[in-house]
Amino acid sequence: QSGLMLWGIADAWIGQTRHKVGATPPGSSGVVDSGGAQASRWGMRGTEELGAGLRAFFVLEQGISLDSGATTRVSASDNGFNRGAYVGLSGDFGEVRVGRMLTAFDALRGSTNHLYDSSGFASTGQVWGASTTAANGLPEVTGSDYLARGNNTAYYATPNIGDFNASFSYSYDEKTATATGNPRLATGHVKYTSGPLRIGYGQQAERYTTGTNRYHIVAGNYDFGAFKMVGAAQRQIDGRVAGQLKSNEWELGLDAPFGAATIAVGYASSKTKDGAGRRVIDAKGFSLMGTYDLSKRTRLYTAFRQLKTTRADGSTSLDASRLGVGITQKF
Amino acid sequence: QSGLMLWGIADAWIGQTRHKVGATPPGSSGVVDSGGAQASRWGMRGTEELGAGLRAFFVLEQGISLDSGATTRVSASDNGFNRGAYVGLSGDFGEVRVGRMLTAFDALRGSTNHLYDSSGFASTGQVWGASTTAANGLPEVTGSDYLARGNNTAYYATPNIGDFNASFSYSYDEKTATATGNPRLATGHVKYTSGPLRIGYGQQAERYTTGTNRYHIVAGNYDFGAFKMVGAAQRQIDGRVAGQLKSNEWELGLDAPFGAATIAVGYASSKTKDGAGRRVIDAKGFSLMGTYDLSKRTRLYTAFRQLKTTRADGSTSLDASRLGVGITQKF
Amino acid sequence: QSGLMLWGIADAWIGQTRHKVGATPPGSSGVVDSGGAQASRWGMRGTEELGAGLRAFFVLEQGISLDSGATTRVSASDNGFNRGAYVGLSGDFGEVRVGRMLTAFDALRGSTNHLYDSSGFASTGQVWGASTTAANGLPEVTGSDYLARGNNTAYYATPNIGDFNASFSYSYDEKTATATGNPRLATGHVKYTSGPLRIGYGQQAERYTTGTNRYHIVAGNYDFGAFKMVGAAQRQIDGRVAGQLKSNEWELGLDAPFGAATIAVGYASSKTKDGAGRRVIDAKGFSLMGTYDLSKRTRLYTAFRQLKTTRADGSTSLDASRLGVGITQKF
Repeated sequence: QSGLMLWGIADAWIGQTRHKVGATPPGSSGVVDSGGAQASRWGMRGTEELGAGLRAFFVLEQGISLDSGATTRVSASDNGFNRGAYVGLSGDFGEVRVGRMLTAFDALRGSTNHLYDSSGFASTGQVWGASTTAANGLPEVTGSDYLARGNNTAYYATPNIGDFNASFSYSYDEKTATATGNPRLATGHVKYTSGPLRIGYGQQAERYTTGTNRYHIVAGNYDFGAFKMVGAAQRQIDGRVAGQLKSNEWELGLDAPFGAATIAVGYASSKTKDGAGRRVIDAKGFSLMGTYDLSKRTRLYTAFRQLKTTRADGSTSLDASRLGVGITQKF
Repeated sequence: QSGLMLWGIADAWIGQTRHKVGATPPGSSGVVDSGGAQASRWGMRGTEELGAGLRAFFVLEQGISLDSGATTRVSASDNGFNRGAYVGLSGDFGEVRVGRMLTAFDALRGSTNHLYDSSGFASTGQVWGASTTAANGLPEVTGSDYLARGNNTAYYATPNIGDFNASFSYSYDEKTATATGNPRLATGHVKYTSGPLRIGYGQQAERYTTGTNRYHIVAGNYDFGAFKMVGAAQRQIDGRVAGQLKSNEWELGLDAPFGAATIAVGYASSKTKDGAGRRVIDAKGFSLMGTYDLSKRTRLYTAFRQLKTTRADGSTSLDASRLGVGITQKF
Repeated sequence: QSGLMLWGIADAWIGQTRHKVGATPPGSSGVVDSGGAQASRWGMRGTEELGAGLRAFFVLEQGISLDSGATTRVSASDNGFNRGAYVGLSGDFGEVRVGRMLTAFDALRGSTNHLYDSSGFASTGQVWGASTTAANGLPEVTGSDYLARGNNTAYYATPNIGDFNASFSYSYDEKTATATGNPRLATGHVKYTSGPLRIGYGQQAERYTTGTNRYHIVAGNYDFGAFKMVGAAQRQIDGRVAGQLKSNEWELGLDAPFGAATIAVGYASSKTKDGAGRRVIDAKGFSLMGTYDLSKRTRLYTAFRQLKTTRADGSTSLDASRLGVGITQKF
């Protein structure tokens, strides 16, 4: 019922990364990296039943780079329990949390990402919010994907209301916001779940001192039995840039079980235009993963990812791939 | 008997902080903060019975800022097990510890602070050792409250001798002391406990390269049954400042239980003069807290604190308040 | 069979360090330090039996400086689980690990070091790879002992093949190597174990951008019953230095049990010459330790170490000693 649980995930892979374009010098490199299938982490969590359906709980969770032992940098933090540090209450009224945690926007987006939201091989987080270096007289363009977690956050999740539920989160900037960091976050999503279908709409606004960076998403998944399909379409409007940057982004994935094995494939695309409607960045990525479960806790996997980013003039600013085999152990 | 225990406290609150004077720009801000009632932390500790009353033990304890997941900065350290990292032996002879830990001075002062020594809302640590910014031709004055913990520390606590006990700690500077950091600490306290009364005297000397900063305290508490009273009077003599700074400081608190609820109130005052006896800083603070226990492990609270600091010419250098509601979960 | 284990070692000592030569100013200092007998640490580890002799396992281990609570800097890292962070599989084929871990060279060298490989008082790590400051017209010489751990590492240990076994590790630099950091590591050792004898040969190559630093070692131990002997001879060729630096190094140790007590003694020597065969550094160290076990988990110890380093002209660049008493508690 209550108590304290220590837990985690240890995931490392060995393989090769290759940059045809986008590294100096270009070329390939042998690598041992952390978190090919799932981000390595450890944490403590506990739940206490208080009677009448009321429960108190806490979570402390730290990202680990298993290739160096260091704390993994996530959502602009590389210190302490940076994946989650919060306390909360749940009951008939829903659930309330306070602390550092995933945003309510991520609760929809993260759960509808292809390749099981793989931290090392899914394309979405690399392709959406893509950047390009300067070349051919074109300037550098700094894109940015959404902030998955916020500090100083209050979170509310509704109970299920028929087939619907929703959640909202607000992260105070505590007057520390700058042009590039510590934005105030206002996020939310609403979701419909019925039988094999789940579909939802989410929004996240990140207010920096120089403007607001806003995301809208429609995302869902469907279980066809023999395989599952996930997909999402996202619209980003970055108001920090003079004249705005607007991106149209989508991703699609399929995964199919075969006994103890599964195979998953995913594709992500992002097209960014400036305020005048001129093309700025095109990015796309393709991902493939095969897994084999040695037990409920231990999984072997092999995976491949190919990314490509193109500037306004059609020149390539990134052409990178990675291939590896790895192991995930839950504890 | 022995073994290893994992434990901690998760405490976060949501509310508002307001600076009439003392922030740029002045004004109020919504906040989610860690440790309103008790500092959030986690740790490991263990005890081993060695026979004949002899026990070996260790403690590892880290402060956590639940609003960011980061390690909380305490006693000039924001790294690792900064709240305590030591090993020791206890028996008929008393108790010996070596490592990083709370000083013997803190063992008296911390246990007689109002508002249950609340890390977020007690006034004492903010008012005692107050600073002021420069204004009206008056210079900035940097005060400093005592260092609660020391590195490179050896600690000895006596057993109870009748109604008396005492403890002493010494923290080596290992030749790393500077004008502002890594002081050598020599501290101690002696205490009398009988029935509802506890009262003691303590001293702490912090030797920097530029002089010694010294604290004397008389502190105690009394249980009247319907309520408890705590109080302390402290004299600080800061020899690092040319001509010395001398502060007279006191605090008083009451707390009363009402079933599962309690209410606590506290007041702290500090008056600092220079070596010639001229007024430099006046500071005062008022604190109020109500708590309600959902269980032995989970507590809700609401609290308020008002601080005010005045310069030599009577001008205000700080006028700040905070108000919040929070939850503490022990695990 | 499987599961998750939390464990660690808390070790602190109090004593005195003295620098006749090699500190500014020279002299002695009282100290409280961590890890006199064994490096303080904590960690999590787990093993899962997968059937048919196959096992999956993980290790997370962090060094702690018990005198400050901070993470101990080990093998060029002071962040996170810096003593070990890896996942692996073992079975009839041997054992495979990926992540950050001790090198295959260390698996021989660390296990044949005198004074039980004591982190605070063994001489080897201080004498081998010694440095000297500039003086008498002679330049500063920066030596360096081997890197005990590598990031981005793949490790393979053979099963026992008769009385022999071997292990190999390779640490990718992932194109981050510099003149002084992040070298690519290729290491291995082969070992013969029979009755009271263990002896092996190991090699480690550390490739920096400016050259390769290479170590060869022959090391072993022998259990004579009344006492054990350990010893090693190492040859270092540092190709990063113009004309190369070549060092001949050896160490020898004895330890003997007396009931719950033991006594151990060790000696280490290092002679470094330049490529032309001219003397550059002579270094030697002597170590002594007595231990007394209060229980299986708790050990008291007292120890002494004397180090001396001499420049090419015979002048002394380091003459340092330390003496202390400490306690080790395993949990």
